[in-house]
Amino acid sequence: MSREALTSILMSSTHTTAAASASNAAHDNADTLAVAHAAFGHFTHGLATGDWEPFLAMVTDDFSFFFPMGEYQGAHTGRDKARAFFAYVRSAFPDGLTVTLDRVMSNANTVVFEFRDEGVFRGAPYRNRVAVSFDIRGGRIAQYREYFGSDGKSY
Amino acid sequence: MSREALTSILMSSTHTTAAASASNAAHDNADTLAVAHAAFGHFTHGLATGDWEPFLAMVTDDFSFFFPMGEYQGAHTGRDKARAFFAYVRSAFPDGLTVTLDRVMSNANTVVFEFRDEGVFRGAPYRNRVAVSFDIRGGRIAQYREYFGSDGKSY
Repeated sequence: MSREALTSILMSSTHTTAAASASNAAHDNADTLAVAHAAFGHFTHGLATGDWEPFLAMVTDDFSFFFPMGEYQGAHTGRDKARAFFAYVRSAFPDGLTVTLDRVMSNANTVVFEFRDEGVFRGAPYRNRVAVSFDIRGGRIAQYREYFGSDGKSY
Repeated sequence: MSREALTSILMSSTHTTAAASASNAAHDNADTLAVAHAAFGHFTHGLATGDWEPFLAMVTDDFSFFFPMGEYQGAHTGRDKARAFFAYVRSAFPDGLTVTLDRVMSNANTVVFEFRDEGVFRGAPYRNRVAVSFDIRGGRIAQYREYFGSDGKSY
């Protein structure tokens, strides 16, 4: 049986079945995941190179973000604020950060990436465990929240 | 068409279709989510009351966990180590922590809970943004990783 035939059967059912709901949810997640993976690619590119424009091109006009500590601890709004924040990140890690992605979890609107990053911070080895959570709206990143799993000195 | 009939059609297809794969993935996630939600209920119960035994009853024999800072920063293994850690958490928050769950994201094996917690730490108001990531294996929690999104003083 073709995929199209199955989809037709699933969608034409008068009553919404659990299978159809699961299929729809999986489809929504697939779209959300595709956008989030593209954005995460730009995010790691930014961490590695300091070039954040590809990531910033994917955020909504009302984009907001949360950062766990330091000068930018708390909530911030707007692409310009994000650009200033990423310049601050670059100033802290002028040689960039290398990311190792461990896991990706999602629901219909949000995708979480668990990763480790590594670099040099003020002349000393830097290692952290990080989770970033991206909210997707209209094919763009509407908000991201960053969480630290370690102290920057070890995994 | 009944759910059973649809499932039969999906599962009897000679070739694995995209729809069937999506349905299987959603089913796997549903099982993983159910276990993780039960464990998270016990986790918040532990934070609120200091009674961690229901949570500890759900971990695997080789359970391990990561904590971001302080005396328990880093990786730890075993139910007894976890029990000692949770006693340490209770000693830091003898009046407990109240959790507000914001989002749940998953894949087939792992579920992330994003929440805020609130309590009193050494006589001062405590607020944090937290992500905990639970790996599920055989209906139990095999590992959990905790991430902090704020500084304990504000969201």
